[in-house]
Amino acid sequence: METVSEVRSHGGLQGVYRHASTATATEMTFSVFVPDHPKGASLPVVWYLSGLTCTHANVTEKGEFRRACKERGLVFVAPDTSPRGPGVADDDSYDLGQGAGFYLNATEAPWAPHFHMRRYIEEELPSLIAASFPVDLSRQSLMGHSMGGHGALTIGLRNEDRFKSVSAFAPIVASSKVPWGERAFTAYLGPDRTAWAPYDACALIAAGRRLPALLVDQGTADTFLERELQPQRLEAACAAAGQPLTLRRQDGYDHSYYFISTFMADHLHWHADHLG
Amino acid sequence: METVSEVRSHGGLQGVYRHASTATATEMTFSVFVPDHPKGASLPVVWYLSGLTCTHANVTEKGEFRRACKERGLVFVAPDTSPRGPGVADDDSYDLGQGAGFYLNATEAPWAPHFHMRRYIEEELPSLIAASFPVDLSRQSLMGHSMGGHGALTIGLRNEDRFKSVSAFAPIVASSKVPWGERAFTAYLGPDRTAWAPYDACALIAAGRRLPALLVDQGTADTFLERELQPQRLEAACAAAGQPLTLRRQDGYDHSYYFISTFMADHLHWHADHLG
Repeated sequence: METVSEVRSHGGLQGVYRHASTATATEMTFSVFVPDHPKGASLPVVWYLSGLTCTHANVTEKGEFRRACKERGLVFVAPDTSPRGPGVADDDSYDLGQGAGFYLNATEAPWAPHFHMRRYIEEELPSLIAASFPVDLSRQSLMGHSMGGHGALTIGLRNEDRFKSVSAFAPIVASSKVPWGERAFTAYLGPDRTAWAPYDACALIAAGRRLPALLVDQGTADTFLERELQPQRLEAACAAAGQPLTLRRQDGYDHSYYFISTFMADHLHWHADHLG
Repeated sequence: METVSEVRSHGGLQGVYRHASTATATEMTFSVFVPDHPKGASLPVVWYLSGLTCTHANVTEKGEFRRACKERGLVFVAPDTSPRGPGVADDDSYDLGQGAGFYLNATEAPWAPHFHMRRYIEEELPSLIAASFPVDLSRQSLMGHSMGGHGALTIGLRNEDRFKSVSAFAPIVASSKVPWGERAFTAYLGPDRTAWAPYDACALIAAGRRLPALLVDQGTADTFLERELQPQRLEAACAAAGQPLTLRRQDGYDHSYYFISTFMADHLHWHADHLG
């Protein structure tokens, strides 16, 4: 693991790191904020999965998460959203290819050699974080934005014992039923929709998967609300399955970091309460 | 005045606006955050002057000021750092020309036609803000970063009755005595150093100008500390003149928005206390 940068901020260390990933067979970059802590302490960790077009940098620069992480003693990890580089398949559109990994393991050409963000987030990165930072992996929470909200929900649902709480900003909640997901899943996973089921939060809930605690914020002025996000699908799936859900419709907020940064501290304090 | 964008954030409206400036004879862009407030209310206003290479966007995206402004009912105005555009003189280096206006009125070619940031900030923009936003200009405070800290200090000192409080992050405190200022002042104002005196905070304090309250944060890991910033000059000038100063050396912090965002809320709460 190589240190790209480390800078002091909000009573902690904001770092950016790079490593050779076996899951994606590329170099991967991520950021970690570690608040000052007593020597030898192990801190709970919050994972933040970003949305389409983003890298680790968007939330690291604009997310306004460090103050609450310092107050509550949380390590904050922000991975990239896909493999990248000249040898990695890509597409001219913003919602497929580099920057649009959809937190799945691709099986189809030309994506299968590198697009394994599910394996990267579920298996490889936790081991690296545990080996390199003062974290207590018995206390993890997970959050994400948009495509990263899809990632947070589906990874949380498939790994029921790993996270104490899961939250999302404007998540894609039914990825197999909306244009962003249908296009990506067809490309990455092929046309057989049975292969899509592990990557659809509503379908996982309907199949009996559960989250210990679930908080979602959705702006009412989000331009993707009706076509891609459709939070009413999550409400219905949770109600039918008995999955507790706090869904807050935030009046006048859009899809940007101006929205995310507004409610970031709320989410982190809520996660901290669940992390104990 | 034209609205470039308006977005809801932190319980208020974050706008970006553009207008034809008579002071600079160019279009100028600035951002304004207005927290939600009772109909008909007039709010105190905090001006934030940015540093070299910045536009309004840097602090607007990374400054983490909106939460405190909402809590304390402050309007936050962030102007650009210079005139810009194809018809405006420029220089290949980052510390002269576009993005490096130094908050002065240039008298020398090729800068004199447009580089009048002093007049823009002191005269033109306040009138526009007063006409367009719910502000109470009897309650103003001023802050800035680096070159914008120089701007905040010198504009505050030259306009003693206008601001209730002035603060700065890593300001240039003796612009006529350090390389950034010497180079810029020679270009913009000519070699006669008597013309530089209104633009040197320490010289203004030595000449008897005063600020009602002055707070400065300076990171100890700032790479510009010894060559360009030299806060000990401000300490000495204030001590000799009886100007109250709170100067905080922040251990391990650098010159970036990771530093600024850490202490932004502190500064805004301090300004709010002075604004009443």
